[in-house]
Amino acid sequence: MNNFTFQVPTKIIFGRGTQKQVGAEVKKHADKILLHYGGGSIRKSGLYDTVTASLREAGVDYLELGGVQPNPRLALVQEGIQLCRDNNIGFILAVGGGSVIDSAKAIAMGVPYHGDVWDFYDHKADPQEVLPVATVLTIPAAGSECSPSTVITNEKTGRKYGYTTELVRPVFSIMNPELCFTLPGNQVVNGISDMMAHIMERYFTDTEHVDLTDRLCEATLRSIIYHAPKLRENPSDYDAWAEIMWAGTIAHNDLLGTGRTEDWASHGIEHELSAMYDIAHGAGLSVIFPAWQKYVYHHNISRFVQFAVRVWDVDLAFGDPEAIVQEGIRRMERFFHFIGLPIRLSELGIDDTHLEEMAKLAEARGVGNFVKLGWQDVLEIYRLAL
Amino acid sequence: MNNFTFQVPTKIIFGRGTQKQVGAEVKKHADKILLHYGGGSIRKSGLYDTVTASLREAGVDYLELGGVQPNPRLALVQEGIQLCRDNNIGFILAVGGGSVIDSAKAIAMGVPYHGDVWDFYDHKADPQEVLPVATVLTIPAAGSECSPSTVITNEKTGRKYGYTTELVRPVFSIMNPELCFTLPGNQVVNGISDMMAHIMERYFTDTEHVDLTDRLCEATLRSIIYHAPKLRENPSDYDAWAEIMWAGTIAHNDLLGTGRTEDWASHGIEHELSAMYDIAHGAGLSVIFPAWQKYVYHHNISRFVQFAVRVWDVDLAFGDPEAIVQEGIRRMERFFHFIGLPIRLSELGIDDTHLEEMAKLAEARGVGNFVKLGWQDVLEIYRLAL
Repeated sequence: MNNFTFQVPTKIIFGRGTQKQVGAEVKKHADKILLHYGGGSIRKSGLYDTVTASLREAGVDYLELGGVQPNPRLALVQEGIQLCRDNNIGFILAVGGGSVIDSAKAIAMGVPYHGDVWDFYDHKADPQEVLPVATVLTIPAAGSECSPSTVITNEKTGRKYGYTTELVRPVFSIMNPELCFTLPGNQVVNGISDMMAHIMERYFTDTEHVDLTDRLCEATLRSIIYHAPKLRENPSDYDAWAEIMWAGTIAHNDLLGTGRTEDWASHGIEHELSAMYDIAHGAGLSVIFPAWQKYVYHHNISRFVQFAVRVWDVDLAFGDPEAIVQEGIRRMERFFHFIGLPIRLSELGIDDTHLEEMAKLAEARGVGNFVKLGWQDVLEIYRLAL
Repeated sequence: MNNFTFQVPTKIIFGRGTQKQVGAEVKKHADKILLHYGGGSIRKSGLYDTVTASLREAGVDYLELGGVQPNPRLALVQEGIQLCRDNNIGFILAVGGGSVIDSAKAIAMGVPYHGDVWDFYDHKADPQEVLPVATVLTIPAAGSECSPSTVITNEKTGRKYGYTTELVRPVFSIMNPELCFTLPGNQVVNGISDMMAHIMERYFTDTEHVDLTDRLCEATLRSIIYHAPKLRENPSDYDAWAEIMWAGTIAHNDLLGTGRTEDWASHGIEHELSAMYDIAHGAGLSVIFPAWQKYVYHHNISRFVQFAVRVWDVDLAFGDPEAIVQEGIRRMERFFHFIGLPIRLSELGIDDTHLEEMAKLAEARGVGNFVKLGWQDVLEIYRLAL
């Protein structure tokens, strides 16, 4: 086990009706805030009305900035920064999914900073202070409601970069599984894929003596695998949503990575896919993860045997280690397909035209810790995914 | 799943050599502190020298108050409160195990309070503010390094009461598994019993749809069960200690209780045992938990089947549910015995003299949520443990 530090100060307020607490909770921190959200879904669902009524009731003034898009853009972040500066606002409330929260975190970093907020994403500077951010989560997927990360797209350069600092963990996050009932089916399964990927990026490690976190990873994966199909059968299944929603937070609040070196190769490889083609992050991950596993499992076969046996219930007596590992990967593919996720690039309408170009772009940013991958490796993984 | 709030702001600094960071970490919060500890073990081990050198190097002034005993006493707490007031001290550093940390939390609550600190334990008042507490943990067991709880004994009345407030979660806890190498064997296994009990008190619930936390509980228990025997074979096994130490924190930082009603019957039943007889809390728990399980399992047999199958690897095909449950309990008893814990009162030299008296005392404080137990029930559980 590696030495580590771990601190998650975010207050989680979880359960039915909890969105009504938002005003009172915000009021502990600020009298005037920026209310940040995406498109029209929170208006249609009535969440916008509930949140604004709660804010007014608590005596919290708010300015609004909607319009966050799925890959949140720098221009809107810069607009938000200016809005906060002009109106002396010191607190951001994000109502939405990962994109809205990531955009809010970017605004929070940018307001007290004298340069361009993109400097952080470009690794030219680190924030010394940030505004507090809080969230009302509507899409379990990215884990941003409790994470120290934010990903923003610079629409001028086409670059989509992430930045991580403990300073941007939200001060509180309100999580009501009922708010997920109206999510479109593809967002549901893309979210499942994303949270499973967050766990697997941590699970595949060469760090030894990480038994406890291995088991916590396996427990969380198994719970997701058990409950996800129920959401297709009944999108209003509160109990299944509650498990999935809480699992999505635990998957990415760093508990499952304590004491171990994490990988993040598949995220890097997928990143180039969704930058080149207009595909959802979760759909890209369900295609890349099986291909990545097929390519790297010889590196540490006992870890993949453990994954197959403990997560996918492959019988240890099934055969030789290779057969066990391959059966584990097959079961993962079968699961992804069963809930409606793609497992091949062809299902996304992607052919081999840009594979080498994407592989070289991926290599330039560095790919993987479990196995360090060069562009030829990434190319081979793309080909395995065709 | 029940609605819940969950927030653990404690910063965990985990791993080899981390005790050397204590001065720098304290300095972020205070220039002058109370250094609180127990007997001579931290002097013998050299930890006292390391901690005080680190404090001096960081320019932190410290006053000392040692002498905390295993059931930490009110008189020493009151001495600590006076010491802090007289010297204008606003920060407590606890170096030790659960007793030292609980004593530090009591001092932290008492300093800003104008009445008697025992008022809190007696549920006559709640603290409005407390001093910050930090810890250097030397005994993985009580989970106090990350928990909101403190237990103090009023030596004048013989009463041992607990108090819980989110305000006393430590601001940071330094956890180096190397510091556990010199623990006496009985403290090691009593700690194992205590952390397993913290999980089981949460595991046995009637709250439905708590699959994720069930699995996290099972994962943590299995990791403890796997690693604990290694500590008997080699008390300096860093890797095993690292798993156990981190498991002890996760067992009791409330993550495993999110969304569920917890039980705490066995703690209540044990409490009277260790108040009446001079036995260790962990030793009492390993005696009471199997007896409690035998007495209550009919209440929710499917939960006990799950416990037997998932935690103790009892084959579901083993037979009827009763047989599966009983085999699970047997395996738990066998595990406790194997690592050197008692499983019967007779092993602790306790006979039936005071059983009814203790049962009535337990009932007066209320016993259990999973099954509400009256004094006749508690008496029967004591008898099953004879």
